[in-house]
Amino acid sequence: MKKIKELHSRAAELTNLNNILALLQWDQEVMMPPAATADRAGQLSVLSTIIHKKITAPGLRNLLQQAAEHSDHLAAKDKALVRILTREHVRNTKLPEKFVADFARLTSESLPVWVAARKQADFKIFLPYLEKIVSMSLQKSDYLGYEEHPYDALLDLYEEGLTSRQLNDIFANLQPELTRLVEKKGVTPSQDKPVFPFPPIAQKDQIAFSEMMLEVIGYEFTRGRQDVSAHPFTTSIGHNDRRVTNRYRPDSLEFIFSALHEGGHALYEQNIAAEYADTPLDEGVSLGIHESQSRLWENIIGRSRLFWSRYFPILQQAIPGSFQHVELDDFTRHINKIQPGLIRVEADEVSYNLHIIVRFELERDLLAGNLRIVELPELWNEKYKKYLGLKVDSDANGVLQDIHWAHSSLGYFPTYTIGNLAAAQIWDAYCRSDPDFKQTLQQGRLDKIRKWLTENIYSHGSLYPPAELLQQVCGEPLHSGSFIQYLKNKTEFSL
Amino acid sequence: MKKIKELHSRAAELTNLNNILALLQWDQEVMMPPAATADRAGQLSVLSTIIHKKITAPGLRNLLQQAAEHSDHLAAKDKALVRILTREHVRNTKLPEKFVADFARLTSESLPVWVAARKQADFKIFLPYLEKIVSMSLQKSDYLGYEEHPYDALLDLYEEGLTSRQLNDIFANLQPELTRLVEKKGVTPSQDKPVFPFPPIAQKDQIAFSEMMLEVIGYEFTRGRQDVSAHPFTTSIGHNDRRVTNRYRPDSLEFIFSALHEGGHALYEQNIAAEYADTPLDEGVSLGIHESQSRLWENIIGRSRLFWSRYFPILQQAIPGSFQHVELDDFTRHINKIQPGLIRVEADEVSYNLHIIVRFELERDLLAGNLRIVELPELWNEKYKKYLGLKVDSDANGVLQDIHWAHSSLGYFPTYTIGNLAAAQIWDAYCRSDPDFKQTLQQGRLDKIRKWLTENIYSHGSLYPPAELLQQVCGEPLHSGSFIQYLKNKTEFSL
Repeated sequence: MKKIKELHSRAAELTNLNNILALLQWDQEVMMPPAATADRAGQLSVLSTIIHKKITAPGLRNLLQQAAEHSDHLAAKDKALVRILTREHVRNTKLPEKFVADFARLTSESLPVWVAARKQADFKIFLPYLEKIVSMSLQKSDYLGYEEHPYDALLDLYEEGLTSRQLNDIFANLQPELTRLVEKKGVTPSQDKPVFPFPPIAQKDQIAFSEMMLEVIGYEFTRGRQDVSAHPFTTSIGHNDRRVTNRYRPDSLEFIFSALHEGGHALYEQNIAAEYADTPLDEGVSLGIHESQSRLWENIIGRSRLFWSRYFPILQQAIPGSFQHVELDDFTRHINKIQPGLIRVEADEVSYNLHIIVRFELERDLLAGNLRIVELPELWNEKYKKYLGLKVDSDANGVLQDIHWAHSSLGYFPTYTIGNLAAAQIWDAYCRSDPDFKQTLQQGRLDKIRKWLTENIYSHGSLYPPAELLQQVCGEPLHSGSFIQYLKNKTEFSL
Repeated sequence: MKKIKELHSRAAELTNLNNILALLQWDQEVMMPPAATADRAGQLSVLSTIIHKKITAPGLRNLLQQAAEHSDHLAAKDKALVRILTREHVRNTKLPEKFVADFARLTSESLPVWVAARKQADFKIFLPYLEKIVSMSLQKSDYLGYEEHPYDALLDLYEEGLTSRQLNDIFANLQPELTRLVEKKGVTPSQDKPVFPFPPIAQKDQIAFSEMMLEVIGYEFTRGRQDVSAHPFTTSIGHNDRRVTNRYRPDSLEFIFSALHEGGHALYEQNIAAEYADTPLDEGVSLGIHESQSRLWENIIGRSRLFWSRYFPILQQAIPGSFQHVELDDFTRHINKIQPGLIRVEADEVSYNLHIIVRFELERDLLAGNLRIVELPELWNEKYKKYLGLKVDSDANGVLQDIHWAHSSLGYFPTYTIGNLAAAQIWDAYCRSDPDFKQTLQQGRLDKIRKWLTENIYSHGSLYPPAELLQQVCGEPLHSGSFIQYLKNKTEFSL
């Protein structure tokens, strides 16, 4: 008992320090004066060092080992505490400090090189750095340990317990279906009614409407706030402090879907049980499950005709002069347009996942030593031809388009698609529990959906590992069936 | 050499942690969602504990002792580092942790009682708490140590090296002069031209004009920002991150003088030498010297006719419909009105210091045991009658008006008046160096003034103790002569 109390006290300290770290990062993206970059780097470094020392402390290891030995007598909450802290402890202990520092230096050196390479559309410039990044990523996998494939050690950092073997199986099923849908193009705006482009939307109208979108899905502004940043994101600075950001371009509807996307992330965090405050359970359990919630609110709900049957008239009123002469059906077709392109971040709901599968396959084979880095652009282009039917015109729009590799983030990309797949499975489970789901959506009874999600997912925070949570909610493991069916329904039959 | 390097490394860590603490506090006042109060309290507590441990560490004490022993061989910068860290170390070590926790609890219990007492205008409600606060403050003085008067130990926390004996002498001279000036009332708005009240000023116009005021005095927005808070303040989050706040009331010109006041604080911090970044030298040396800079820019410069001869036409343009038919002289008279009242925070430049002297004398005598707390309201009212010629109608407008005592901040009040006195002395020194100072002001050559202040004061940060700095800049110690003469010039002869 005393040991568990001591463990909770250490967990509370770590959680508070991580929340402070999140504030430093939020402020840097949203508020910080431009000249303060070096000041902030110093602060982040000092605080990260303190956190690293505390998470790797031998005293913590002893407590965790003792707790693990008496695991049978622990409450579920305490078991989860031990599971999460052990993961953090082991991860931080296995990587030597010198290796972490060297890798961080390599990353900060690689970023400007990648920027230059992309600018000049010349992969050769970036090649020697990517070689080092892949080699150090392999080293990292070795330090962290894995059973079957070095990719698994990296994937596990983002999606606890998932393996490349599972992804191989899921994607083998998913890719041909997506490629077929992309070929058919599915829903496109009706050609005879070109309702877009629309007149520029004033920033204050965008802010007001995105705040309204957040309110209708149940985001609590007393426990958060929405600000402007270069890229929209959600962050958690405390149990009652989950902040979102957005960006506003006069000629884009992105602000609506960013609000719903970040709002989905924030709903997850705002509805974690209060008893988990000040513990590492007080956050979403994995990137994939987190992304399932942003995608569920942004896409499954937020691009549905049923949702807009209620909110389109409100949008028409909120943004004077933009959509008064647009029909609901045309609006809904527009926001569901399927149009494959070379750039991942601009991709539609269908082809987005093909972009991810390309990257997954290449990363997996790079780490397995099955391909030479010099061949990467060629292989990239072949896969784009095969999966998306597109010819890559330039490495800048091809293999060099993402910052992730320059950032040393291998193993990260699949979480986006895991999010899409899980979102569709979870939505299916919701619909089974609410056969009148169409009415629920049409009537704007989003609180009913949020309540179900809170009960089944949000309130648990990180109590259950992601696979266990999904099994519990959906009665089945991660698969691509629900998502494929969802896309087919959307593109073939209705909106 | 190696020890000095180690000292610098510890100083850098502490400075970074204190800057993080400042961000947590800034965010709390300016950005934080209302429901996150408890989260933030937890974060502040965790971080404060870490800072306390680091500043009281025996390893630091050893380094400081060794450095002090070789003080003759130290560079001025390193000597100052040792001086400041030793002050911090000693202060934190002398106060037992339990005492600090007990005092903090007493303070947080006292605040709501003071609020209730003030609401009901009943000193008796607050009396038992104030008794405990005075008694614990005495205990604090004993822990910290003093030579002559327990007040000195508390005063030294805010104004290094100053004593109540010095303040007795200075205030004995100052008070009768101020009382005479208050009796004469000095400048008042001309009765036949009631130019105020003016129409409400839109917040966006107030923000734009206060930003312009900050810019004209030389505040760098790339290294700071201005936001809204309940009470204006300045804070430092890093060498290139000095933030100010302001507040905007439609019927008040306060926003102009708050911008100049906080801008003065911020100019001090923005112009500290870059080599002091990441050390405790990277801040203003004392509250009094800091306040001298806010008051110099707000009052001596910012309420002068010469300053407004340049900026009043700009104000007239910036705030349409408010001042178009107002004469410069009437405006200047209005912002320099001398009108004693019961409330300190609403006081004019002359009577403000009488409010301070009342509080100083009472605190001093309370700590010396020369008066019983139950007599406090009566003594307060007597002094207001004697010094300001006012009859206190209620304890709410008298002895209960300030939060400071409920906050356990005894020894703090004089720093405001020290600021006024030092500002006048420093301004005299500036005028000796620039005989054309009137032209300098009239032409808006504020950069010339800022440069001189930077060279003589700002750049040094905390390199010199406050008394030494003042002696160096003005060739004399703190006194009331310059300030009295400044007020006389203002009220008797010109604006």
